[in-house]
Amino acid sequence: MFARSVSCAVRSTARILAPARSASTSAAASSAAAAVATGATPSIAALRAATQQVARLSTAATARGSSATAAVSDHAQFATEASSSTPKHAAATGVRQVIPMGSQSLKCAWADGKAAEFHYIWLRDNCHCPACRHPVTHQKVLDTPSLPINIEPASLRVNADGNVDIVWNNDGHKSTYDAAFLRQNMYSLYETRPPTNSTRKENMTLWDQNIIESQLPIMEYSELATDDKGVLKWLKMLERYGVAVVRGSPAEKEQVLAMGRRIAHIKETSYGLLFDVLNEPRPGAHLAYTGVELKHHSDMNYMEKSPGIQILHCIRADATGGESVFVDGFWIAEWLRKTDPTAFQVLSSIDVGFGIKNGDHSYINHVPIFCADRNQEVYEVHVNNRTMQPLISHPDAIVPFYSAFRQINEKMRERASEWRLDMRAGDVVAFNNRRVLHGRTSFDPSSGVRHLQGCYIDRDDFASRMRQLMAKHASH
Amino acid sequence: MFARSVSCAVRSTARILAPARSASTSAAASSAAAAVATGATPSIAALRAATQQVARLSTAATARGSSATAAVSDHAQFATEASSSTPKHAAATGVRQVIPMGSQSLKCAWADGKAAEFHYIWLRDNCHCPACRHPVTHQKVLDTPSLPINIEPASLRVNADGNVDIVWNNDGHKSTYDAAFLRQNMYSLYETRPPTNSTRKENMTLWDQNIIESQLPIMEYSELATDDKGVLKWLKMLERYGVAVVRGSPAEKEQVLAMGRRIAHIKETSYGLLFDVLNEPRPGAHLAYTGVELKHHSDMNYMEKSPGIQILHCIRADATGGESVFVDGFWIAEWLRKTDPTAFQVLSSIDVGFGIKNGDHSYINHVPIFCADRNQEVYEVHVNNRTMQPLISHPDAIVPFYSAFRQINEKMRERASEWRLDMRAGDVVAFNNRRVLHGRTSFDPSSGVRHLQGCYIDRDDFASRMRQLMAKHASH
Repeated sequence: MFARSVSCAVRSTARILAPARSASTSAAASSAAAAVATGATPSIAALRAATQQVARLSTAATARGSSATAAVSDHAQFATEASSSTPKHAAATGVRQVIPMGSQSLKCAWADGKAAEFHYIWLRDNCHCPACRHPVTHQKVLDTPSLPINIEPASLRVNADGNVDIVWNNDGHKSTYDAAFLRQNMYSLYETRPPTNSTRKENMTLWDQNIIESQLPIMEYSELATDDKGVLKWLKMLERYGVAVVRGSPAEKEQVLAMGRRIAHIKETSYGLLFDVLNEPRPGAHLAYTGVELKHHSDMNYMEKSPGIQILHCIRADATGGESVFVDGFWIAEWLRKTDPTAFQVLSSIDVGFGIKNGDHSYINHVPIFCADRNQEVYEVHVNNRTMQPLISHPDAIVPFYSAFRQINEKMRERASEWRLDMRAGDVVAFNNRRVLHGRTSFDPSSGVRHLQGCYIDRDDFASRMRQLMAKHASH
Repeated sequence: MFARSVSCAVRSTARILAPARSASTSAAASSAAAAVATGATPSIAALRAATQQVARLSTAATARGSSATAAVSDHAQFATEASSSTPKHAAATGVRQVIPMGSQSLKCAWADGKAAEFHYIWLRDNCHCPACRHPVTHQKVLDTPSLPINIEPASLRVNADGNVDIVWNNDGHKSTYDAAFLRQNMYSLYETRPPTNSTRKENMTLWDQNIIESQLPIMEYSELATDDKGVLKWLKMLERYGVAVVRGSPAEKEQVLAMGRRIAHIKETSYGLLFDVLNEPRPGAHLAYTGVELKHHSDMNYMEKSPGIQILHCIRADATGGESVFVDGFWIAEWLRKTDPTAFQVLSSIDVGFGIKNGDHSYINHVPIFCADRNQEVYEVHVNNRTMQPLISHPDAIVPFYSAFRQINEKMRERASEWRLDMRAGDVVAFNNRRVLHGRTSFDPSSGVRHLQGCYIDRDDFASRMRQLMAKHASH
């Protein structure tokens, strides 16, 4: 009823506020909000009277979570949820004003000058009351498809806490929207880009030999043997560098599974829960099981989602040679983007087939060498010449592909790109199999036993564990 | 040397043959090949003399694998590999002529009139000799990045078997290309589209209530208890309809794991290897564990790759109500594409966040409701209102999204879209969790025990097993 009664005024307001919709900087958003605040036209003045206005709150601090909360959360949407349940954030920046924009949306202006549009159907769907969202499981129990698409408020106000109260016109349901929740979900501002699954974040350090050897992500087993703060340290190193080493673990069989289970359940594959990399030359064996050099590669790109984290544990290292070699694929991707943008486009556009037929198993998957999201951020790297299938692409893309593929491999093979590790019994190396490529220098199988065991863990299980540990150790 | 000596002639040939590059129908490709065959210009005549020509083979049958081989293989690239190792296919359509196109590629013309371009670097990379490809593991041992990008043949001919022999100019390496292998990889023709990971194939039947109830994908446990031909029958039904029922299995705990292991290893998740759906009302329990109605949904869309196959096994069914409900999400997607193409575009473009915080676990993933590949083929469907996060998208997309989301849910809830199953003790239902949505009508927990156990298997492990069983039972 309320919304309908102001619909004439709303129409002109929508025009006046339009610049805020395309605001790409907070300055532009602020100026739009300022236009509202100064009451530039009579219709806005009328709206101001019609909507309840609370005093401008004293602090203009951002509500974008404490740094601890932001670090715990892999994604903005989870940062949001954490913030909205924390009353202190609501206090930090309250809503100053809400203004109906027409029959479908309102504009919400904060005390610090930010303003953003929210649609009524979106607001109704995001009601956080216990009838709409299960208080324990946090699952939505509201049946979204049953909502009228053209739902509108019967009444609308900013309450004394700086949050937004709405009574809905279809059934009188009452919703209250936390100012911080709205602040975290300002989808109408282009500065809030749609979230993606990208894993590249400010807490990653891309590296070449110089950088990694100056920062050495290595720790002692004793630090994490009984303390999950040590596990958190390990996971943080692994997230930052894409590779992390633990020294001095028990050099026993299946220890790699125990290490993996400090993170999450093991990802079983067609190789089983665990695989052995042993120096016995067997006819027909996988190349990894002989003494030959293994060029930089990632594992199992032929799976629909290749394993996220790989853990390798050294049980015996008596053979001569056989150094483990790591290269940061994200660093290589950024190097290529900078030095040859066309080659980068080729490798981030063309789907490559990876496949294997191995005993009773046959797998095939198609994925670019560099997977980039819609913001052109690289989130996965897939390199494995041994399992790459015949390239099927536009004929004019064939030679450019081979040329770009050669470029990145040459760069990877420069000593200045590599981190080399002479793994000793008890060493455990974990790495992000979709970021850091691994390889091995050749060794002489007759010079002694070389025995590694390995396993995989999925990246989302790793991320979940890291969030859990960060939350636990942030609050104690 | 050879290639260089004809480079002048090659240049004009490349222009003349250009139409074949954009051939989108086999008729166009044939006419281009005919131009070659008739020797329309002197330069082509010279090339014909320079390349060895074999007699046109008597049969023009396609080499695109036998129907059995094609069915075994989920993907064209694996069909290829199977075909190229089968000599009879080489005999079916031999290469008639190879013509250098310039310094980078040749044109290959088959006896039936088809012609396609192959680049020298591509050919060198795809040498199948035992030095380049491991004869047992089939892995590529050739180091592709070491190849000169501008590699050319020193000599080039069609041999007596209708295959192509090349001696390379850089190191004298000799390669022989099977006619069927080349035929299967004609990437220069637009009719050979780049492969994708899509799972929609001619051996799927999309269904509504009428179709599924007339075809009933149901079989007896006795058919597969000891015979893996029965397992193959089960998997084929599951692939065709996205859902398949086995009746009369032992109504014992953990039987679901035994059933799953007939396919592949179980995919462990944060719920463990196995989950129980039991009618005990517990406070704070997952909604699935109470007696409430569960609307059509897919499971665990918040994982980076949601489980591919779900298996549910009924151990006890004494409660009143609680029918299992299935809907073909691919059928719903095609219905929407036809009736409201704009709504289809909205749901296949906008990334939706799915998330859960569950005890110590927190997961979030962003994916469209309908995942469509670059050919606009839908290969995954993700629907779960309970775990859908606040939508972050362009403000002009918000209302269209809710409207389209409502449309598909209303369609799913029509009785004419559903397959309802009253599961009895011993029933096992397996379904493609990325295609078929599942739900449950409400039941009264006090009316008796209802106990299901469930587990997941990844789709690529399923596909691998199906290929293995089809190969086994095609050859016996």
